[in-house]
Amino acid sequence: MITVVKIGGNVIDNEAALERFVADFAQLPSPKILIHGGGKLATRLAEKLEIPTTMVEGRRVTDAATLDVVTMVYAGLLNKRIVAKLQREGCNALGFSGADGNMIPATRRNPEPLDYGFVGDIEAENINRNLLSSLLESGVTPVFCAITHDTEGTLLNSNADSVASAVAVAAATIAPTDLVFCFEKQGVLRDIDDENSAIPLITKADYPTLRSEGIISKGMIPKIDNAFRAIDEGVTSVTIKHSEQLNNTEAGTTIKR
Amino acid sequence: MITVVKIGGNVIDNEAALERFVADFAQLPSPKILIHGGGKLATRLAEKLEIPTTMVEGRRVTDAATLDVVTMVYAGLLNKRIVAKLQREGCNALGFSGADGNMIPATRRNPEPLDYGFVGDIEAENINRNLLSSLLESGVTPVFCAITHDTEGTLLNSNADSVASAVAVAAATIAPTDLVFCFEKQGVLRDIDDENSAIPLITKADYPTLRSEGIISKGMIPKIDNAFRAIDEGVTSVTIKHSEQLNNTEAGTTIKR
Repeated sequence: MITVVKIGGNVIDNEAALERFVADFAQLPSPKILIHGGGKLATRLAEKLEIPTTMVEGRRVTDAATLDVVTMVYAGLLNKRIVAKLQREGCNALGFSGADGNMIPATRRNPEPLDYGFVGDIEAENINRNLLSSLLESGVTPVFCAITHDTEGTLLNSNADSVASAVAVAAATIAPTDLVFCFEKQGVLRDIDDENSAIPLITKADYPTLRSEGIISKGMIPKIDNAFRAIDEGVTSVTIKHSEQLNNTEAGTTIKR
Repeated sequence: MITVVKIGGNVIDNEAALERFVADFAQLPSPKILIHGGGKLATRLAEKLEIPTTMVEGRRVTDAATLDVVTMVYAGLLNKRIVAKLQREGCNALGFSGADGNMIPATRRNPEPLDYGFVGDIEAENINRNLLSSLLESGVTPVFCAITHDTEGTLLNSNADSVASAVAVAAATIAPTDLVFCFEKQGVLRDIDDENSAIPLITKADYPTLRSEGIISKGMIPKIDNAFRAIDEGVTSVTIKHSEQLNNTEAGTTIKR
């Protein structure tokens, strides 16, 4: 069983949370894979460097200067900090951008009708499964940031959730794979104001009712849709849980066929 | 035969030189390893961020803010740019800091009598030869920056020439290894003003005469001393040549036992 874990800003931006997560993740049985998002550091660095933020229809554009910033912060500072901490905990972590070992080839998003700049979309089937498999077999824990490449020499900025899903789908062709999204809530909450109301299990049969009752709405819908897509493509289960509950198998919301 | 190549600022700071080097390096027969230095980008970034430069006895101190800058630039921007370019040329490059896969554990330099901050000294015998060997065997080309780690969770800034020598000595325990230092001159010049005067071969027997004649002096002495040290520790040959001459086997100065 391979475990793929994704962490985002709530862990990365908080040194104490990151330390706790790293210790918990190191204790997870191998084989395992970590994907990390970016957090606020890249935005802060761009501000300090006075790199203007370009928005298109409410979304940030990755121009050349912004690509350099996210490459420095995600593939450099954050990735290497996390790898060094995991090494300290005895976990043989090895950091990756998608360019390394051609692990995650991506396609630059069509600039028409809206040009988001150096943004890369990925397909699970293009992930370098042979290298992934041989690393996992030799006890290495790959740690991915969401920087990918177009195989023509250009780095691209990808969505960390999409990287996590694609890596999990690729891993599922090697061995049964569980995908875990860590975030700042205890799971999919039945009552948004009650952190103790996480729905333990959502199946395809339950999903329409939960949506029609309005329990799953807004920002949670794409998350659950993505989870079911990953499951359709071979992932065994997708769990959404608080980052502090990584090793609590009872915690969070698990999505299964 | 393994080839270990080190490039420095003269290649990294010049986009045209880097493109040419990458194309040449991709053509070198495998197995091969690249080590890159830093160039001027880190200094420029530190200036933009108004991170003060601390000097101790004429040498730059790597304080915590400077460590973040060099980690971003060396392990992030430069390493991933080089890896993406090599991938474009069909070379299956995989970028490394010393923390990744615990490839280069280092020891933080004693803060007494002079504290250089987060600076790491390395020993060839500590390099992760098993991982290096299995990557080379599977056709991967490791690309190292000079960021290492202390195995206790802290990243360290190391000297890229020292990384190259240590990696070559470690590689030499896997297969016969040639080490190539690319720089801005044609080699060790018999006449400093004549780029066509490179001495083709220096052996241990020649070295004392070349020094007493003043042909090898100043900055070249530690380079040649380090070359002989690498050879004493198992490297077959060390070549010092211009980065544009990588694939010209007649070019540069080769140092052999």
